[in-house]
Amino acid sequence: MTAFPLPPGSTIGIIGGGQLGRMLALAAARLGFDVVTLEPEPDSPAGRVASRAIVGDYDDPQALQALSEACDVITYEFENVPAAAVTTLARLGASVAPGARALAVAQDRVDEKTFLNAHGAPTVAFAGADSPKSAAEAVAALGAPALMKTRREGYDGKGQRWVEHAADAAGVFEALGSVPVILEAPADFTRELSVIAARGRDGETAVYPLAENHHENGVLRRTLAPARASKALAEKAEAIAVRILGGLDYVGVMGIELFELRGGRLLVNEIAPRVHNSGHWTQDGCGVDQFEQHIRAVAGWPLGPTVAVARVEMLNLLGDEAEAWARHAHEPETRLHLYGKREIKAGRKMGHVNRVRPL
Amino acid sequence: MTAFPLPPGSTIGIIGGGQLGRMLALAAARLGFDVVTLEPEPDSPAGRVASRAIVGDYDDPQALQALSEACDVITYEFENVPAAAVTTLARLGASVAPGARALAVAQDRVDEKTFLNAHGAPTVAFAGADSPKSAAEAVAALGAPALMKTRREGYDGKGQRWVEHAADAAGVFEALGSVPVILEAPADFTRELSVIAARGRDGETAVYPLAENHHENGVLRRTLAPARASKALAEKAEAIAVRILGGLDYVGVMGIELFELRGGRLLVNEIAPRVHNSGHWTQDGCGVDQFEQHIRAVAGWPLGPTVAVARVEMLNLLGDEAEAWARHAHEPETRLHLYGKREIKAGRKMGHVNRVRPL
Repeated sequence: MTAFPLPPGSTIGIIGGGQLGRMLALAAARLGFDVVTLEPEPDSPAGRVASRAIVGDYDDPQALQALSEACDVITYEFENVPAAAVTTLARLGASVAPGARALAVAQDRVDEKTFLNAHGAPTVAFAGADSPKSAAEAVAALGAPALMKTRREGYDGKGQRWVEHAADAAGVFEALGSVPVILEAPADFTRELSVIAARGRDGETAVYPLAENHHENGVLRRTLAPARASKALAEKAEAIAVRILGGLDYVGVMGIELFELRGGRLLVNEIAPRVHNSGHWTQDGCGVDQFEQHIRAVAGWPLGPTVAVARVEMLNLLGDEAEAWARHAHEPETRLHLYGKREIKAGRKMGHVNRVRPL
Repeated sequence: MTAFPLPPGSTIGIIGGGQLGRMLALAAARLGFDVVTLEPEPDSPAGRVASRAIVGDYDDPQALQALSEACDVITYEFENVPAAAVTTLARLGASVAPGARALAVAQDRVDEKTFLNAHGAPTVAFAGADSPKSAAEAVAALGAPALMKTRREGYDGKGQRWVEHAADAAGVFEALGSVPVILEAPADFTRELSVIAARGRDGETAVYPLAENHHENGVLRRTLAPARASKALAEKAEAIAVRILGGLDYVGVMGIELFELRGGRLLVNEIAPRVHNSGHWTQDGCGVDQFEQHIRAVAGWPLGPTVAVARVEMLNLLGDEAEAWARHAHEPETRLHLYGKREIKAGRKMGHVNRVRPL
């Protein structure tokens, strides 16, 4: 059994070698921790700043055993950690945070919304379906148009389609691969918001100020934080976050995407049991950012302050937008965060900038 | 020939694997660079966050060749890089910043003060000596007491002694190892200040606000920044910094230690051609800290802003003071920076904290 808090010099395992893993690794290093990554691709962004990079599939038993032996605690940068990996790590006695329940809930959109509604975190109306017929029935019950998404996998707008008429449901079901799906009523929202929240091993919670998000083609482009919001709205979001984290007996940082409806009602769109793109603003807007906060939580440290010390506009650098690094480097208000990805691909998240202004 | 500015994805070499190298490596990673370290000790603090750690002596020709082949530009975390290493790297055509002239001046206390005085950067009166007899003559000329230091090597108060009477000079000379020395008149200073300054490849300079430093037993304990200082004093320090950097055609960050005399006169105590312990406050007090600034300069990027956004008290964690990490982690105003050193030794710099307050 791992004893918490982990002293500096302990080793933190990170499943996933992308930019979130990289920024987690940098934060861990600042606190004196060592990092070991597990990632199938060699030469990964996170692996290159870790003291050791294990190259292997996420569910490779040997790789998981090596990770488990090297690490005092293991965390991850993405929610689609294979169930087999979670089982293997549990059998090896590894300490994994956030825990298996958070992963299970976040991996299945029906389970996720069911959990949320049961814990006082309202969502749009929804229904599961696993056949063309049940899909059509679900659309009929919810009313068209409805958004059909695969129950599992899919991110950044992938694996989802609008069903304009109940009669189209069967066709869309097949177009999504004839896999179990969720149907969601549309949310008539005025803004997309998110809240980054953390919970420590002692149950302490800390919630960052609300952020306002702007997506394009399902991908986050821009976050403004702290979002302009009434005290009542901020308190509502914080209360939702605390209920979700408590309900999962959660340890770590979570990203919670919200819809703001007219009149200030909030619905939870989805939760991510990890650090979140819409929390990158905290790197230059808060004393302790979401990455250090996550490391503090999984290491059993006290959480850091979440108050904003600056106003930030975060812009993702997608694909060849990253080639504008020289221009951004000239802007005095701009902090650059580049991920060390070897290859530019259209739409790929290559980095982000935080434009910082006084509060 | 390396073309500047270096695009993200380029590789920066760092000679030295300690905490300064580690913090440089973390800053480089944030900008999307890869880092390769050269350090004789395996498992070094900097090597553990680098994409590759070459283990070898600083003047090992094979290690230097490997470093040179792997890197687009090479920098260092300490000024006592062996002359043989500089020569070898020059022969290999490596691009090294700061350059050989800055290293040569910083490695010899007589050359350093001679250079400073020639460039309008006043110092205490001094004289070189290389025998018991010339040491006694120097003390007689300067007046006792005088401070005798070895011309080369020595840091954190090591390699220096006070000569109380001219008659003691020969004895102190022998106690310091009968090596060439410098004798310095005492500075009747009211405060120890420092200024961290940067110069880019295009000659652009950027100077951080003055910091006030408190030493114990020759080791920095505490920095307060921005230091309370008149506009005139700040401008005087900045002008000195700009003259020094220009005089060396310098590229990178330099730490300049100053004595403030009664009436606001400033003397330069010493210069360090690298990031400096008294600049650690910039990590949490400025938008771009000294580590990113140094990486920007050596990579040929534009320099970042140096304005303070917070008031910081930096405290070094020496030896077993680092064991108080859990207490510091509880303090909301405190940012922890721990170096990942494997072994606590008395007086060893294990980490530092920045206590942050609004300006």
